[in-house]
Amino acid sequence: MATNEELRITLIGTGTIGLSFAAFHLSSAIPCQLTIYDTRPNLHDYVHEQLPRLFADEAIPSDIAKIRIATSLPHAVADAHVVQESGPENLDVKKELWKEVEKSAPNDALLWSSTSGIPASQQAQAMQDKTRLLIVHPYNPPQLMPLLELVPSPQTSETVIARTRDFWQSRGRVPIHIKQETTGFVANRLAFALLREAIHLVNQGVVSVSELDQIVESSMGPRWAVAGPFKSYHAGGGPAGLEGFFKNIGGTVQACWDDAGKVNVGDGWEEDVFKQAKETYGTVNVQERDRITRRVLQVLKEEKEEKEQTTN
Amino acid sequence: MATNEELRITLIGTGTIGLSFAAFHLSSAIPCQLTIYDTRPNLHDYVHEQLPRLFADEAIPSDIAKIRIATSLPHAVADAHVVQESGPENLDVKKELWKEVEKSAPNDALLWSSTSGIPASQQAQAMQDKTRLLIVHPYNPPQLMPLLELVPSPQTSETVIARTRDFWQSRGRVPIHIKQETTGFVANRLAFALLREAIHLVNQGVVSVSELDQIVESSMGPRWAVAGPFKSYHAGGGPAGLEGFFKNIGGTVQACWDDAGKVNVGDGWEEDVFKQAKETYGTVNVQERDRITRRVLQVLKEEKEEKEQTTN
Repeated sequence: MATNEELRITLIGTGTIGLSFAAFHLSSAIPCQLTIYDTRPNLHDYVHEQLPRLFADEAIPSDIAKIRIATSLPHAVADAHVVQESGPENLDVKKELWKEVEKSAPNDALLWSSTSGIPASQQAQAMQDKTRLLIVHPYNPPQLMPLLELVPSPQTSETVIARTRDFWQSRGRVPIHIKQETTGFVANRLAFALLREAIHLVNQGVVSVSELDQIVESSMGPRWAVAGPFKSYHAGGGPAGLEGFFKNIGGTVQACWDDAGKVNVGDGWEEDVFKQAKETYGTVNVQERDRITRRVLQVLKEEKEEKEQTTN
Repeated sequence: MATNEELRITLIGTGTIGLSFAAFHLSSAIPCQLTIYDTRPNLHDYVHEQLPRLFADEAIPSDIAKIRIATSLPHAVADAHVVQESGPENLDVKKELWKEVEKSAPNDALLWSSTSGIPASQQAQAMQDKTRLLIVHPYNPPQLMPLLELVPSPQTSETVIARTRDFWQSRGRVPIHIKQETTGFVANRLAFALLREAIHLVNQGVVSVSELDQIVESSMGPRWAVAGPFKSYHAGGGPAGLEGFFKNIGGTVQACWDDAGKVNVGDGWEEDVFKQAKETYGTVNVQERDRITRRVLQVLKEEKEEKEQTTN
């Protein structure tokens, strides 16, 4: 990969995720040459209208003027070091896309999909070289959130995974290698497990939508921002760690699991829960949320850097 | 309740939770007269040795010298406005305790239990007046974490709930009224639902204990510190809100629910998961975790206060 020249990154798709990745690269300490491709009409005007809005509280990086807008896929990827697609969640579209990208992109270009659900093994079906494709699934918005789930197919090469990890780590992100093409990958599975219980409790009238959010915001949210669930419960078990935690409170954990709700999509809780969310939040001020999240992440980043300096 | 005099708060039990509540009250902007009761030998020395350790990064409040140490339960509660027990999780002990407290405490004293699992309706079985008892369940450590789950029994009076809510709100905390005596209340049920899926994914080899924690710390942890799950997904659905979110991605949500793990305590995942936790974390530096958590909570508090000032 390029060492003495700027990396050339081609982003395919200009929805929320695609533009947010563009904003991330523009703000990154490591400069790059960005190319943006989409089939959208008036692409140039659209990008230069929408992208600046993602820098609400910051100065708009001057590199925004350097972005190359491509309206032909072969041109867009011809000299790319990295190609990342954030297009529609449609298998046929993605299969066709990778088949075309493979024809025009350099042999060693990294090929990434931002999909939240369509595994690399399916997307790569029409590719000659299925070892090249890797899922790089962000947590929305990628401009802000550090996590990237790297989900290879069984064919994806170790080299591609390692190069991708290096790319994101050098940019201060948290790339995690997911070892199986699990439905929903990992982050969403975890979040949806909690969401299911949340819906159940609201549906049973135990708490309201607003109260449930307040509970999470004032307990496990801040806790898990600092120490994930295993680390937290390992600490909670005292000197005996996670084993001690389960020795002390395993009965309560199992009782909660046995009593957990099993709501399903479409079985009747929707009307009230959607209504409560709408009445409580109206339209969420996402700029405000992101500004506060940025401050929280800044604290975590400072602490991490300080710790790395102390231990080095 | 006292208006022109300091509130008299009696804390029963000097384990982690009891001492952490003591530390909270000592640091609170609203002063109080603390009494600490326990059957532990050498109670005075124990408290004055352990309690100062909870002020790792801060000055030890001078009010620590004013604490009354009580070795007789009737004396401890005789003039109390608030009695909170954080004793062993044993129903018989708690039943007996409340029977005795009721005999000696003023009629209008608030009676709270910090239990994480024994409902008020069971603890109050030997009380004359079962309307008085309320669960006030903290998120550990209460010195730091804002959440308090108020879990009444069907007998607990509305006045007791309202007075308790006022008490904690005026001290900058987040008291949430849980409307049913649900197993594990709400916060633990939510956290344990996510933990179950976390254990399943580690058990299946999808990610390691360390990787799972990194995923949570770099995605939903910071997100949920700022906006709970309903608010987050309501925002994620765009103008159509939570309904739009489920319209777009409800199929993936249901697929994750259908595929979710159903591990149970004792069915064989323990050895590897406990070992990974131990090898990854050894002994967790809880002081460090709490210091960083305090910084995160400070950001959230500043933002909340600023917003309240703007909207008032």
